[in-house]
Amino acid sequence: MKKHIVLLPGDGIGKEVIESAKDVLSAIAEEFNHLFSFETHEIGGAAIDLYGTPLPETTVNACKQADAVLLGAVGGPKWDLNPSHLRPERGLLGIRKALDLYANLRPIKGFKNLLHASPLKEEVISGSDLLIVRELTGGIYFGSPSERRDNGQVVVDTLVYTRREIERIVDKAFKAAQGRRGRLTSVDKANVLESSKLWREIVEEKKAQYPDVAVEYVLVDAAAMKLITNPTHFDVIVTENMFGDILSDEASVLTGSLGMLPSASINESGVGLYEPVHGSAPDIAGKGVANPVAMILSAALMLRYSFGLDDEAKMIEDGVQSALDAGFHTADLRVENGRQVGTTEMTKLIVDFI
Amino acid sequence: MKKHIVLLPGDGIGKEVIESAKDVLSAIAEEFNHLFSFETHEIGGAAIDLYGTPLPETTVNACKQADAVLLGAVGGPKWDLNPSHLRPERGLLGIRKALDLYANLRPIKGFKNLLHASPLKEEVISGSDLLIVRELTGGIYFGSPSERRDNGQVVVDTLVYTRREIERIVDKAFKAAQGRRGRLTSVDKANVLESSKLWREIVEEKKAQYPDVAVEYVLVDAAAMKLITNPTHFDVIVTENMFGDILSDEASVLTGSLGMLPSASINESGVGLYEPVHGSAPDIAGKGVANPVAMILSAALMLRYSFGLDDEAKMIEDGVQSALDAGFHTADLRVENGRQVGTTEMTKLIVDFI
Ligand SMILES: CC(C)[C@H](C(=O)O)[C@@H](O)C(=O)O
Ligand SMILES: CC(C)[C@H](C(=O)O)[C@@H](O)C(=O)O
Repeated sequence: MKKHIVLLPGDGIGKEVIESAKDVLSAIAEEFNHLFSFETHEIGGAAIDLYGTPLPETTVNACKQADAVLLGAVGGPKWDLNPSHLRPERGLLGIRKALDLYANLRPIKGFKNLLHASPLKEEVISGSDLLIVRELTGGIYFGSPSERRDNGQVVVDTLVYTRREIERIVDKAFKAAQGRRGRLTSVDKANVLESSKLWREIVEEKKAQYPDVAVEYVLVDAAAMKLITNPTHFDVIVTENMFGDILSDEASVLTGSLGMLPSASINESGVGLYEPVHGSAPDIAGKGVANPVAMILSAALMLRYSFGLDDEAKMIEDGVQSALDAGFHTADLRVENGRQVGTTEMTKLIVDFI
Repeated sequence: MKKHIVLLPGDGIGKEVIESAKDVLSAIAEEFNHLFSFETHEIGGAAIDLYGTPLPETTVNACKQADAVLLGAVGGPKWDLNPSHLRPERGLLGIRKALDLYANLRPIKGFKNLLHASPLKEEVISGSDLLIVRELTGGIYFGSPSERRDNGQVVVDTLVYTRREIERIVDKAFKAAQGRRGRLTSVDKANVLESSKLWREIVEEKKAQYPDVAVEYVLVDAAAMKLITNPTHFDVIVTENMFGDILSDEASVLTGSLGMLPSASINESGVGLYEPVHGSAPDIAGKGVANPVAMILSAALMLRYSFGLDDEAKMIEDGVQSALDAGFHTADLRVENGRQVGTTEMTKLIVDFI
C-alpha cells in the first residue's frame, strides 16, 4: 500500500513525539511492504513564529492532498498573550474545519499495569473501556454571532447545528457501537437546550436503522458524575462539540495514564488527523523525556481508521503492551520495579518489537 | 428573630426531606428563641398535576414575599415525556429567574467517616474542601434565540451575558474566597468563546479590589480533569451557568456522599432558595429511607447566608456530624459497623442534638 502522510509536529513535545511515530510507521512499512511517504509542515506556535499565522495556506493545502495527517501538539506560554487570531489553538480549530474533521474519536482504556496510577479506586476503574465520539466542527465553537454588543455591555456566543451535522456524527457513533459492545449513550442537555432536543430526536429516528445497538440518553451533568462513579457503565458515548471537549478530557484522566491516550479526527472521505490527547507540555519539551506512546498509538489509529490496516495497527498496539509488560515506562508514569526510559528508548523498544 | 419561610417540597423524596428540614428548623427556633413561620407551595411535577403548570403564580408570589425558600427536589418519570413547558425542571428554572437567584453556591467537603465511599483514592480526595460559585440566571440557559430554523434543518441556542451579570457573580466569588482560603479559580473557555474572554477581562479588572485573593484561570476542559486528579487544589471556583452545571455535578460525586451536599441560590437582596444537590430519587420515594442530611444542611446554609444566624447553622452542622460520629447513616451510605436508620430517625437524631 502506498500512502502519503503529512506530519505536523506543532510545538513543545509535539516535535519529539512526532519523530517517534515516524520511526514506528517506517518499521511497519518495512515489515509489511508498504510505501509511506512523509512531508512535514508547521502549525500552531511554530507557524506563528515562522509565518505570522497559526495555520499557513501551505499547511492546509498539504493536508488536503495527504492520505492522513499526524499532529503532535500545539500551544505554549510564549503565545499565551497573543490576540485570538494569533493563538496556536486557532491552527487546530482551523485545520479541523478546513478538512471537515467532524468526528473526534477517543478510545479510553486503561493499561492493566498502569491502573494503579489512576486517581480512582482500582475496583471502580478496572474493566472500563469506552469510546467518546465528539462532534468536532459544529456547535458553539464555530457559530456566529460570537461578539460584543452595546459598547461591550453584552456578549453573545451561538450554538448552531444543522440536522445533517448531527445525523452524520450520530451515524458514526452507531456504527462504532456496532463494532464494539453495542451500547450507545447519547449525552445532551435536552431539558434546557433546543439543540439538544433536536439531537435527541435524531438519535431516536436513527435507532431503527441500528436494531443491534441499545441506546440510552444521559444529561451532560449526570454523565459528568457517572463517568467517575461508574466508568465501566459506558461503551460508546456520542455528544456535541463542547460537551465532548469537557467529558473527553474528564474521561482521559480516569485511567491514570493520559500520556498513553490517542485520538482520531475523521472526515466523510475517511481522511483523518491523528493526535495524542495530551498537550505540548512546554515544561518538559526538548528534554527527551516525553512519553511517545499516545502519539504512536495515534499512528496505529491512523492505520486502522484511514488505511484499513488492522493487522499493522494491532502490531503497534502489541508492541506498546509488550514494552509495558517488560516494565519499561517514561517519566510521567510511576511503575513499581519499572525501568524508566526516555522518548527515543521507548520508541526503539516498540520499533524492535515490530 | 422573626422569619417567614416558604417550603417547596416538589416531587419524590423532596416531600419527605422537606419535613426533616422543618423539624430541625423548629428545634432551632425553640432553642434560640426565634419565630420561624412556614407556608407550603407546589412546584415541579406536583404543580403540574394540580394546576397544569410547573410553576403556579401563587408559588412565585409566595416566594417573592418570603424571607427564604426551601426546595426539596423536582422531577420524575411520570412527567418525562411532557412537552418542554410542562416539565418539572421548568419550575426550577422559572423560580430561579423570577427571584433573580444569580448565585448558586455549592460547598463540597467530605465527611471524614464517609470518605471511604468516594470513588477516588483516599489520598486523592482527603483534605478537599471547595466551593463552586455558579452563575445561575444567565448564559445559554436563558438566551434567545433558542429555536429551529429552515424547516427544522437548523437549530440555534444562544449564550448571552451582560457585563453586569458577570460582574456581580465574580464579586460574589471574590468575597466568598476572602472568607475562605483566599484562592479563586475562574473557569472559562477563553480560547474559543467570546463570552469567556469578557468573563476573564472582568475577573482581571476586579482583581485589584481584592488584593488578598490569589486568582488563577483554568479552561473548563482542564478543570474537569483537575477536579479528579487534584481536588485539593481548589478553594473557590467561579464559572458561568452551563460550565457550573457540569463541574458542580462532577465535583458532587468526588466525596462519595452526594446525599449530604447542600446548595444555596441567592439574589442581590440576600433572599435565597436552598436545596439539596441530589434529585427527587423516584425509585426510593415514599419509602421513608431517603437521606435528609443534604436538605437539613441546606436549611443550615439558609440560616447562615440569608438570616446571618451563624451559631444556629453551626449547631445543625454539628448535629449532623455527631449523628455520623455515632455511626448512624441512611441506606444510601455504607458505613462499616454503622447503624442504618430511616429518614425520620436520622432527623430525630439531629433534632435531639439541638
Ligand atoms: C485547544 C482547544 C481549542 C481544543 C478544543 O477545545 O477543542 C482542545 O481542548 C481539544 O479538546 O482538542
Ligand atoms: C434540572 C436542571 C435544569 C438543573 C440545571 O441544569 O440547572 C439541574 O441540573 C441543576 O443543576 O440544578
